[in-house]
Amino acid sequence: MTALRRSPEKIRLPRGFSFSAVAAGIKVSGRPDLALVEVWGRAPSRACPERSRRVQSERTGVPDKPDVGLTGWRSSAAAGGATAAALFTTNRVVAAPVEIGRAALLSTGGRVRAVVVNSGNANCATGRAGIQACERVCREAGSLFGVPAAEIFPSSTGIIGVRLPVEKIRAKLPELIAARSSSQRGALAFAHAIMTTDTRPKLASVRFRASSTGGSKEVTVLGIAKGAGMIHPQLATMLVYLLTDVDASPRELQPLLREACDHSLNCMSIDGDTSTNDTVLLLASGASRVRVRTKDVRTRKKLSAALTAVCQSLAEQIVSDGEGVQHVIRLFVEQARDREEALLVARTIAHSMLVKTAWAGADPNWGRILAAVGRCGAPIDPSRVQIFIGSQKVCRNGIACAFNERQAHRTLAQPVCDIRVQLRRGQQSVRFLTTDLTAEYVRINADYST
Amino acid sequence: MTALRRSPEKIRLPRGFSFSAVAAGIKVSGRPDLALVEVWGRAPSRACPERSRRVQSERTGVPDKPDVGLTGWRSSAAAGGATAAALFTTNRVVAAPVEIGRAALLSTGGRVRAVVVNSGNANCATGRAGIQACERVCREAGSLFGVPAAEIFPSSTGIIGVRLPVEKIRAKLPELIAARSSSQRGALAFAHAIMTTDTRPKLASVRFRASSTGGSKEVTVLGIAKGAGMIHPQLATMLVYLLTDVDASPRELQPLLREACDHSLNCMSIDGDTSTNDTVLLLASGASRVRVRTKDVRTRKKLSAALTAVCQSLAEQIVSDGEGVQHVIRLFVEQARDREEALLVARTIAHSMLVKTAWAGADPNWGRILAAVGRCGAPIDPSRVQIFIGSQKVCRNGIACAFNERQAHRTLAQPVCDIRVQLRRGQQSVRFLTTDLTAEYVRINADYST
Repeated sequence: MTALRRSPEKIRLPRGFSFSAVAAGIKVSGRPDLALVEVWGRAPSRACPERSRRVQSERTGVPDKPDVGLTGWRSSAAAGGATAAALFTTNRVVAAPVEIGRAALLSTGGRVRAVVVNSGNANCATGRAGIQACERVCREAGSLFGVPAAEIFPSSTGIIGVRLPVEKIRAKLPELIAARSSSQRGALAFAHAIMTTDTRPKLASVRFRASSTGGSKEVTVLGIAKGAGMIHPQLATMLVYLLTDVDASPRELQPLLREACDHSLNCMSIDGDTSTNDTVLLLASGASRVRVRTKDVRTRKKLSAALTAVCQSLAEQIVSDGEGVQHVIRLFVEQARDREEALLVARTIAHSMLVKTAWAGADPNWGRILAAVGRCGAPIDPSRVQIFIGSQKVCRNGIACAFNERQAHRTLAQPVCDIRVQLRRGQQSVRFLTTDLTAEYVRINADYST
Repeated sequence: MTALRRSPEKIRLPRGFSFSAVAAGIKVSGRPDLALVEVWGRAPSRACPERSRRVQSERTGVPDKPDVGLTGWRSSAAAGGATAAALFTTNRVVAAPVEIGRAALLSTGGRVRAVVVNSGNANCATGRAGIQACERVCREAGSLFGVPAAEIFPSSTGIIGVRLPVEKIRAKLPELIAARSSSQRGALAFAHAIMTTDTRPKLASVRFRASSTGGSKEVTVLGIAKGAGMIHPQLATMLVYLLTDVDASPRELQPLLREACDHSLNCMSIDGDTSTNDTVLLLASGASRVRVRTKDVRTRKKLSAALTAVCQSLAEQIVSDGEGVQHVIRLFVEQARDREEALLVARTIAHSMLVKTAWAGADPNWGRILAAVGRCGAPIDPSRVQIFIGSQKVCRNGIACAFNERQAHRTLAQPVCDIRVQLRRGQQSVRFLTTDLTAEYVRINADYST
């Protein structure tokens, strides 16, 4: 996609958003650790009749539809702020901001005025006190913006099991809000402040033209992410914020978000552990005045492609900045019976410590890949499996075939390497991003923290 | 179990077995790599009417019951050699000796005269040529013993995808057979020769008294194993040989073997990878003249306890000798709904790279354990989970509780540490042996081998 912009190149900003970051003293390093995205958007284009009742129910801490899930949201675009769709961790252990954020989106029908993120503390396994701390931050930020607490979307990333220093955050909120700007510098400051053990900020953007009632207009999709790193070696988090200036309802956004993630962020793995705080949030400000209608297949398709491209770029950035990563592997599992089977094979290979350590040594050790395929649980016939390293076939029909080992080693020694596994069972494929497992990963995660 | 003998202490030998080992030049190091257990047993006590037909079908390479599985064996004890039961890898990629050994046990109705093991080559992913090589070894050994090839049980462990040097093995078979002895030195030589990256041989034995027609007699169970190590960093294998002098049919042995393994070898993990060659073989020579009848609950129970104790000792020896292992973790998952749920939780914790690296650093990082519980797939309520490190509770109802971190660190820094996870969902428990993940593991498995 030619329009794709990756950091550290120049990024394109969607209209309707401003950004800021400050140091609130949560990180021991003193680096920026509190970040804001505000959606100033535009005037509401459609009414949101049930909003006041819902906000009220949220204020009492009892969302009116706690269990309907994201697909149960009612379409209700733009009454100030952005329309929103979100995906959260599948872990049953969830951090306080995930609980609060999920309930808030339900209670507002998918409306967000601002996102407040802190790094340095995951606010997870902190019990009732953690929930109250998160609610307090949202209430304070909401009152500063003059909106209900439920329109503030919270995120946290960092150490598990430690109380959120809520006073430090409260004290810095006015400064955070005052500093916001709709500039690239602001977006970059946001991207830096949400980092934990990430070594670089992660941004990607796509711009395309779409027709609207007033003629052809520009639409921009910007993605900002932090990766799967650790802080004081505790489980960390993937946070992804996708910002666009299209005008779309939460109900219209949700399937677009799901599609984009399924082919990018859901097809990657560094160490196979699922964080307690993982969040992907899509916000649409409406400021481009391009309306995405389900019937408008062309615009919908363009937006879907833009979201997928941004998510794929962020996935690549997250994986290549994974802890101790020396080699990124693009794993293609092909000719599977169905997509689930392809994913099962890809994940089993990507999570095998033996396969990952072989990759760390640039060892063209296809026997370990074949053995991982054999134990994945799908009824695969090993005697039909083919394995390629780069362009070289190294295993034909489940057994060794002659190949240039030196060349295969050189291929694997590159920063990015393609590995292809063909099952000869069907037509489905998956492209899965993963990494090697290095001694440096162990060092980062074994350091005694207490 | 007071009678339990672990290497390097004195081990007890069951009657009816002899052992030997030689260096056949398969290992580059020149160390012993070809090993033999012969069962001289005693005269047949029961007929085996279908044997000749079955042996014939095996000779043509078409076992008459290829798919009935081990439970389909007919009871047919002692026509020379031992009665046998076996468990094999669940990996769909299986080595030639696993295919041949499985078919041979089916065709003979569970009869083994000798076990021939080579280390240094797994004879896996070697196609038709690998099958033929394995058949040739069995045929040669069989003719030297004057028995059908199907009564020779083959095992291989070592590098995947390389042809078995069958001529080297054939040339050494007469010497191997001539060297056999029913001595501890012989058993120890066998245990050494089957090692790959194991740093020490693994043996355990139990002796108990059982009543028989001629009064009370001694019964001995000896186990010899090799662990999950690598050779020229390729996927390696767990091989376990359990030898006893009771008199029992294959049908009587199989459930005893399954029970013993379920509570030992099936409750351990070093890196979560399942080998293509894993084999557990139980041989009963009958030489003690103690008959194990299903109705004789007392003798059966004693034998079951002895087999379980031997397997548990071997499991501990295998885990503590795992690659790069600094700490063995005895993981107790308690109060699960059922045993499957307890095992699922134990395996998810034991395979988490984040948890294993924390253990490497003796880091009392219970948040990672809780997060692994949360993603295991079982409907566990995190707010009821308790976690203990040694005797200290570190997590109460899913959140942090005050504990002495220094003491927890010291507990984890021991060579063996107990960790207890209570789910408060039911009555079922599992004891699972696992290890930390160290930089040394990565080094061993990342070394470029080609």
